[in-house]
This record gives sequence, structure tokens and C-alpha cells, in this order.
Amino acid sequence: MSKGIKNSQLKKKNVKASNVAEKIEEKVEKTDKVVEKAAEVTEKRIRNLKLQEKVVTADVAADMIENGMIVAISGFTPSGYPKEVPKALTKKVNALEEEFKVTLYTGSSTGADIDGEWAKAGIIERRIPYQTNSDMRKKINDGSIKYADMHLSHMAQYINYSVIPKVDIAIIEAVAITEEGDIIPSTGIGNTATFVENADKVIVEINEAQPLELEGMADIYTLKNPPRREPIPIVNAGNRIGTTYVTCGSEKICAIVMTNTQDKTRPLTEVSPVSQAISDNLIGFLNKEVEEGKLPKNLLPIQSGVGSVANAVLAGLCESNFKNLSCYTEVIQDSMLKLIKCGKADVVSGTSISPSPEMLPEFIKDINFFREKIVLRPQEISNNPEIARRIGVISINTALEVDIYGNVNSTHVMGSKMMNGIGGSGDFARNAYLTIFTTESIAKKGDISSIVPMVSHVDHTEHDVMVIVTEQGVADLRGLSPREKAVAIIENCVHPDYKDMLMEYFEEACKSSGGNTPHNLEKALSWHTKFIKTGSMK
Amino acid sequence: MSKGIKNSQLKKKNVKASNVAEKIEEKVEKTDKVVEKAAEVTEKRIRNLKLQEKVVTADVAADMIENGMIVAISGFTPSGYPKEVPKALTKKVNALEEEFKVTLYTGSSTGADIDGEWAKAGIIERRIPYQTNSDMRKKINDGSIKYADMHLSHMAQYINYSVIPKVDIAIIEAVAITEEGDIIPSTGIGNTATFVENADKVIVEINEAQPLELEGMADIYTLKNPPRREPIPIVNAGNRIGTTYVTCGSEKICAIVMTNTQDKTRPLTEVSPVSQAISDNLIGFLNKEVEEGKLPKNLLPIQSGVGSVANAVLAGLCESNFKNLSCYTEVIQDSMLKLIKCGKADVVSGTSISPSPEMLPEFIKDINFFREKIVLRPQEISNNPEIARRIGVISINTALEVDIYGNVNSTHVMGSKMMNGIGGSGDFARNAYLTIFTTESIAKKGDISSIVPMVSHVDHTEHDVMVIVTEQGVADLRGLSPREKAVAIIENCVHPDYKDMLMEYFEEACKSSGGNTPHNLEKALSWHTKFIKTGSMK
Repeated sequence: MSKGIKNSQLKKKNVKASNVAEKIEEKVEKTDKVVEKAAEVTEKRIRNLKLQEKVVTADVAADMIENGMIVAISGFTPSGYPKEVPKALTKKVNALEEEFKVTLYTGSSTGADIDGEWAKAGIIERRIPYQTNSDMRKKINDGSIKYADMHLSHMAQYINYSVIPKVDIAIIEAVAITEEGDIIPSTGIGNTATFVENADKVIVEINEAQPLELEGMADIYTLKNPPRREPIPIVNAGNRIGTTYVTCGSEKICAIVMTNTQDKTRPLTEVSPVSQAISDNLIGFLNKEVEEGKLPKNLLPIQSGVGSVANAVLAGLCESNFKNLSCYTEVIQDSMLKLIKCGKADVVSGTSISPSPEMLPEFIKDINFFREKIVLRPQEISNNPEIARRIGVISINTALEVDIYGNVNSTHVMGSKMMNGIGGSGDFARNAYLTIFTTESIAKKGDISSIVPMVSHVDHTEHDVMVIVTEQGVADLRGLSPREKAVAIIENCVHPDYKDMLMEYFEEACKSSGGNTPHNLEKALSWHTKFIKTGSMK
Repeated sequence: MSKGIKNSQLKKKNVKASNVAEKIEEKVEKTDKVVEKAAEVTEKRIRNLKLQEKVVTADVAADMIENGMIVAISGFTPSGYPKEVPKALTKKVNALEEEFKVTLYTGSSTGADIDGEWAKAGIIERRIPYQTNSDMRKKINDGSIKYADMHLSHMAQYINYSVIPKVDIAIIEAVAITEEGDIIPSTGIGNTATFVENADKVIVEINEAQPLELEGMADIYTLKNPPRREPIPIVNAGNRIGTTYVTCGSEKICAIVMTNTQDKTRPLTEVSPVSQAISDNLIGFLNKEVEEGKLPKNLLPIQSGVGSVANAVLAGLCESNFKNLSCYTEVIQDSMLKLIKCGKADVVSGTSISPSPEMLPEFIKDINFFREKIVLRPQEISNNPEIARRIGVISINTALEVDIYGNVNSTHVMGSKMMNGIGGSGDFARNAYLTIFTTESIAKKGDISSIVPMVSHVDHTEHDVMVIVTEQGVADLRGLSPREKAVAIIENCVHPDYKDMLMEYFEEACKSSGGNTPHNLEKALSWHTKFIKTGSMK
């Protein structure tokens, strides 16, 4: 090998070495930056130095959950639920040979990773108080999961007074933990405060995908047990009465898991022409109420369920002449955010905020704007009868079926099969100033009439239900006798295909049984049994 | 005729004349006393001189009621209702040839002279919100009286916000009228304050049979319409927050009628052995709740319906070890007065006081003692969800029938025929801390099982009903799934004659339909249809 070649090779080697060194330096720099960023994140998200030592993996945290425990999780709907520890538990249980079961307490429904995956893995023995998951629904309906379908506002006092067993371990999603070890909740409050207060141990998931700017949106206020309760000092949907954090304390926190996953909220549902017609009817009715002096010009605080009809109604309010509206509701979804954005709503109070994947970027961009207009409360407060009655909520919820006397079924398909549950609809409907139920007049392409002689399950009684709205029209039932209600509903709300059939049932019942609420009990449920047998009520 | 005889006759005549004169004097004196007493009465009872000129006969006052009017009357149950003007109206209408109809608004049920006689005379077009009269019931069930069977707490806001037509004339029983023309109500408050505020004209019946010492028992507090409502400042059943009079003003009073008739309250019902067994079971349950820390030692404020079971329960509390009890209820009946008298209850809040004819003398004798312990409130306050939820009422009401999943029918016999109405049971049951329904396990000497596969009418849903008590035992439904509820009810509450039949229905439904709430809709109401056909469910 010549010297020239050697030198040239050496040169190359030197160049290579210096490149490597440079790259190493770059990597170190990058690593430093990552570490620095991590430190920064940790500093902002875990503001208590000692607690930073409790950060573990999801697997380690999941190991703290034992067979037979009462497990409570944060959030309300797929908002603010823990993302990683539940997944780690599913993985662990699927690898086990022996049975592993827990009771699951939540605010409301939760993510599919929990209700769906836990149901499939056979983890859930008992489920309280609400769900919407199809895999779980199957197990509830075959009797293998015990489901207590409760008014959502009742849950906290059931736990506080030990009516149902105490919480062993709570898994709580947080934006951050304060220096005092208290928890800044993320997008869903639900029963978080009650769970944390009553749990023996708390696992906190700090989710970096939940913007730090959420801090300040929550207004945490809990109630003492009776007889020590004081009036809840809310006279307006926007009143802030509590703290921005959930009191916990660092002693109770047994593990912290860092996560970075957005809420899997539901995608935007499009407004169908039928939903649009229901919305038009409902807004027409509200306008008439204002004209007749039965409602103030800016209405009263609106509570609205979720889904296509709710979206259409709230979108309709955006287009309406109403101003200075407010909402006192459970779930703040896209259409309520838009109601704020379009300047129609001054304030929206709820227990969770659930922007669709489509709406999320806008929500995050304008989070500082929204934070001024949104209050997130524990569900015992958002759904409290005291407030619903005092501020005079207009409650708008969806019925599965309605009968000619105004009884509403919102939970059970053909009387037996659970759909989702009553959720908060009972908390509001029972105590609202104006209780409205909406439904399409038919389902299953017309094989089902949503208005039947007698509902196969009652969730809201004729005493609570004031107004029925379908795409056909509006029946205002207030102050009417049952026979008058029947005529109002049949004439205004029923699909033309079923009008004569229903009127025939009603007239025959008036003749055969008579009474205040005429029913022929031999035929009262015959529409359902016909559907079960033939696939159609016709 | 001899002089001697003449003299003797003259003497006799003189004696006679002087006797007559004496008698005349006596009469004058008596008349003076009567006038004096009347003046004294008037002074005490009508404390505004100008208003004394408005005293008329009942007939004159009844003439102020016109065909088609909305007539509202004071009182709640047969307590504090007007006694003479309604009778005069019946007499007038019976003498008329043309039709004469009014809409009748009340607090609750009322005296037979009104609901019964007006129904028989065909006076009532529409009746809101509650009744218990057999003659009226007939007309409601044949469809000739339109009956809106409403939650009693809703009535005031329906009127205040013109949801139902405004009151034309109110007939109000009073203990007295103040100098300012305000009304001291008698034994039943009900909706008096709202009726007076909203009526064009007010007829006042001053009932001398109602002791003046009732003054001070009433605590009148009315609510603004939302959105202007403030928290109701009651944190304890005994809190006084309002005035002792109903604001009216002398201008509004169009006539005053003096009356002197006691309330026709119901006679004392004896405690049957079955009621006693229900009471024993219920008190046993309450004791267990205290032991388990689910209730404080002195329980929580008790709301109780009326009747034999309620009497037995409250009498049972008199014999129990409980101390410092309180009641937050609608009707204060004998057994609650005895609870005060025996030193067990510190305070009782209600909207009417209804001592039986047997208890009345004792109540009047000790009225000053009772006045310290009793608060009579408008029914919008006594039945307000805000208070029921805050103070954590224990709500005890009677069911007509219950189904295996805990739904309660409290109004309709065999689904169609109105019994009385929901009354205030919904106000309490929906918002109480502990919602208990009692029923004998069988009716009609065993031909009816009070527990059925599916109730034929729902007034209280499975979501509201927490505990069922029969003479057989107690089913605590809180936190259970529907299938677990069915087993708890069948095992603990059902009469032995029907236990196997119900279990058979349940097990068959689990197999055939399955679901969260298994029902065979073909058979769900078959127990009722069998009874209608054969006179027995067996």
C-alpha cells in the first residue's frame, strides 16, 4: 500500500470519525433536549417533587388492581377516562388462567378500551351506573354482567353513605398534579371527586395530550351527607362555586403513569332530514312559548342529550333569533361549542366536554376563549335536582318509544333488552321546568312505530313528560287529561302509517275498559309481540 | 167579678207583665252580648274596618262565581277548604236549568262537599291536580271530568308561568284577615298563596271553628319564576323562612263569608295486624340502616303518606329507640302529632294539619304546644325537590302494585281506572335520599297479588324505587341489577300463594326473552287480564 493511499485512507477515517463524533454530539444534544423537555413536562404536570418518584409504567400500576376490587375511574362519556392502565389490566387478565373480576364504577359511559375490552375479557362482575358499549351490552343482556342502571346524580350519595360498597382503587386521568398532590382533572369530571375522596388508593394517569390550558375549566364542589347539606349556591348556569382541582393529597396517590392519547370521542353525526324536521318543530314550539309568555325571551338554561336530533336542535338555535342563551347540561358536545362560538350562548355548564375528532383542533386552538364560557362540574352538581328545579331547566332528551298517554321508554328495546341506560335524563326530566322528549315517529324503516299503545318499559312517567316532539309535530301535554293526551299525541306526533291503528286502539279501549287511562290489557303490548314474531308492527 | 178577684187578677197581670219585661230585658241583654261577641269576633277575625263591610251570605258570594270560570280553593286534603260558598254554589247550580261548569284547582284532595257534591251536580269540567272522592272518581273514569293528575309541587309554577289558565276566583278559608287585608290561613296551606296572588278576585271564608291560635303555624314563602329563583333557605325541617300570612291586600277581596264548621277530616283508621307487620319490617330495616352507618342515629326527615300502614309505622317509631326525629312531609295526621306528643319528634313540617275527629279536642287543647313544633308551608315548598334532596328525606309511600323489577303503580287499578292520583308521592320519591314503598302482599282476600310480573301503570320507575316492604319482608333494591331485584322481591316480599307463580314467570322470561329486564310480553300483563276475566289472579 503506497503512502499516498494510506494518507488518503487516514484522512477518510478522520473525516468519518469526526462525522461520528458530530452525530454523537447531535444525539447527546437531542437526548439532552428530550430529557430537558421531559423534565419540563414533569415539572409542569407533576408539581410535587416527591410525587415525581411515583411515576411507573402502566403494567406496574395495573398490578395494583386485585381480583374482586371495586375499581372507579374518572371521566364521563369517552372524555377524561384513563387510557393506559385499563389496557394494561386487560393484557394482564388475558394472560391469566384463573378468573379475575372487578366491579366498575364510573361517571357515565367510558372508552371502548374499558367497557368494551374489559367486558370481552370477562373482567366485569358488576357495572354501575351507565354504559353505551355494544360488547358490554351483550353481556348485560345475557345476564353475565350485573348492571345497575341508575340516575347519575345518585351515584355520589350512594358512595358517600356506603349504600354501595366503597371504592378500593380509583384510576384518574389528570392534566396535572399540584404541589399539594391535588388533581387537575381533564375533559370529564363525572364522579372523580367522590371516587378520589372515597378510594383507598389512587392511580393517576397524566395525559400530555390533554392541554394544560384545561386547568381552570373545572369547578369542583362536593356535598356533605344529609343532614349537613347546605344550599348549593348556583343561581345561574355560569356560577363558579368550587375549586379548579380535585382534593386528593400526595399520600393517597400510589402510582402515576404518563400517557399521551387523545379522548376517543364520537365522530360528528350528520343531521338527517328527519332530525332537522324534529328540530324545526321543537324550535317553533319554543318560539310559541316565548310569544305566549311561558318562557323568557332568552329561554331558560338548556339541557340536551346527545346525538343527531340534539345536534340539529342546537344548530337550529344557532340560526334562530334567540340571544344570550345558556346551557346547564351533562355533556358539552360540538353543537354546544358552536352555540358559544356563534355568540348565541353566554355560558355552558356540564360535567364533560366531548369535541368530536373533527372539532378537536378548533377547540384546542381557541381553548382560552372557551375556558371563559365553560364550567365543568361534578355530575352530582351538573345533574342535581335542586339546581334543575331552581334555574328551571329546559330538558330535551330522546325517547326510544312513547305511548299514547305520554309515558317514555328510553332504555329497553321491546321491554327486555337494555340499550344504554337512563343516564342523566331522569335527573333532568324529573325536575326541569319544561320536559321535552323527541323521537322519530318510526324506526326500522317503518316496521316500528315509536309511538305505541303502551310502552314496554317506563323510564319517564306521564307525570314527568310535558311535551313530545316528532318530525310530524308537537304534542303539549301539560294540564291535559290522559284521554286528551292520547288525542294530542295521535293527531300531532304519530306517523301516518300508524295513525288509524293507534286511534282504533284508543277508541276501542275507551269502550272496553274505559277509565281515566283507557287500556285494553290484552292488546296493550300486542304491537311489541307482533314485532317480535313478524318483524313488523304493521 | 168581686173586687178581691179583680185585685188578685190585676196582681197576677202585673206579675206577668214584670216577668215579660224581665224576659225582654234578658233577651236584650243576650242580644247585646251576642252583638258584642259578634263585634269582638269580627274585630279579632277581620282586623280591617272597611273589610267588615264586605261580609255577605254564602249565597251572595256564590253568585260571584260564573259559568266557565277557573275556580281555585284553599286547603290540602279535607283541611282548610272553604265550607259554605261551595255548598251555596251546588244549591244554586242544582236549581239552574242550563249547564254550569267550572275548572277546579286545589292543593290536593278536598272536602266531599266540593269534590263529591260538585261532581254529582255536574259542575266540574276539569280537575287539577289531585282528588280522592268516590263520586268524582266515577266521573273521571267515565271520561266526563277531565282530570290532570300532576305532581303537586308543579302546580304553582304551572300557574305562575301561565302554563295552565289563570285563576278567575279563589275561595280561601281563613282564621282571620289582617289590617292590611292579608290572610291568616287555617289548617291547610296547599296552593293558597299562589291562588291568591294569581286570582282576579278572592272570596274569604272566615271560619270561627278554626282556632285563632292557628295563627303563627303557617310559614308562607313563595318562589319567583326562573331564572330569578334564589336558593330556598331551608336546611332543617323546622326552619321558618316566610310570613305567617298570605299576602292578598283588601282590594282583591270581593266578599267575606263568616262560617263555623270544623274540617271534615277522616276518622282514625285502626292499625291492622298486616299494617303492624309492615311497620315492624320497615322499622327493623331502618334500625339495620343505622347500624350499618347508612343513616344517622336520629334518621333523616321522614315523609310519610297517610293511612293504616303510615299510622302503624309512625306509631312504631313512638315505641322505638329513635330520638330527635323530624318530619318533612305533606299531611300532618294523628300519628305525627303523637310523635311530637311522645317526645320523639322535635319538629314536623307539612302543608296541612289533619287531626281526626277523635284527636281534634286534644290538638285544640294543646295548640300552643303544637304551634312551637309544627311548620305549615305552601306545597311548592313542602314538596320541593330542592329541599327533599338537600335534607335527604326518607320517603315512605304506599304502592297499589309493584312489579318484580321494582316499578310501582300507585294510581290505576288494572291499568285503566283511576284510584286517587300520584299526589305528592312523586315529588318525594323522585328526590328523596331513601325511597321506600309499602304494600300488603295481597289484596281482595288473596285474589290479587300486589306484586305482579309487570305493573299495569307506572308512577314510580325502577330507577326511583329503592326499597319495597310488605308484611312478608323487605327487599333492598339499591345497587342491584334487574334480575337480582326480581329475586330479592320474590324471595322477600311476595305472598306464599304467589311466590312459585312469580318465580316461574321470571325464570321463563329469562329463558325466552332474556335481556337486562327479562319479560315475556305475551304474559307480562296476563295476571291482570286473568283477574279481569275470572276475578282472581290465581
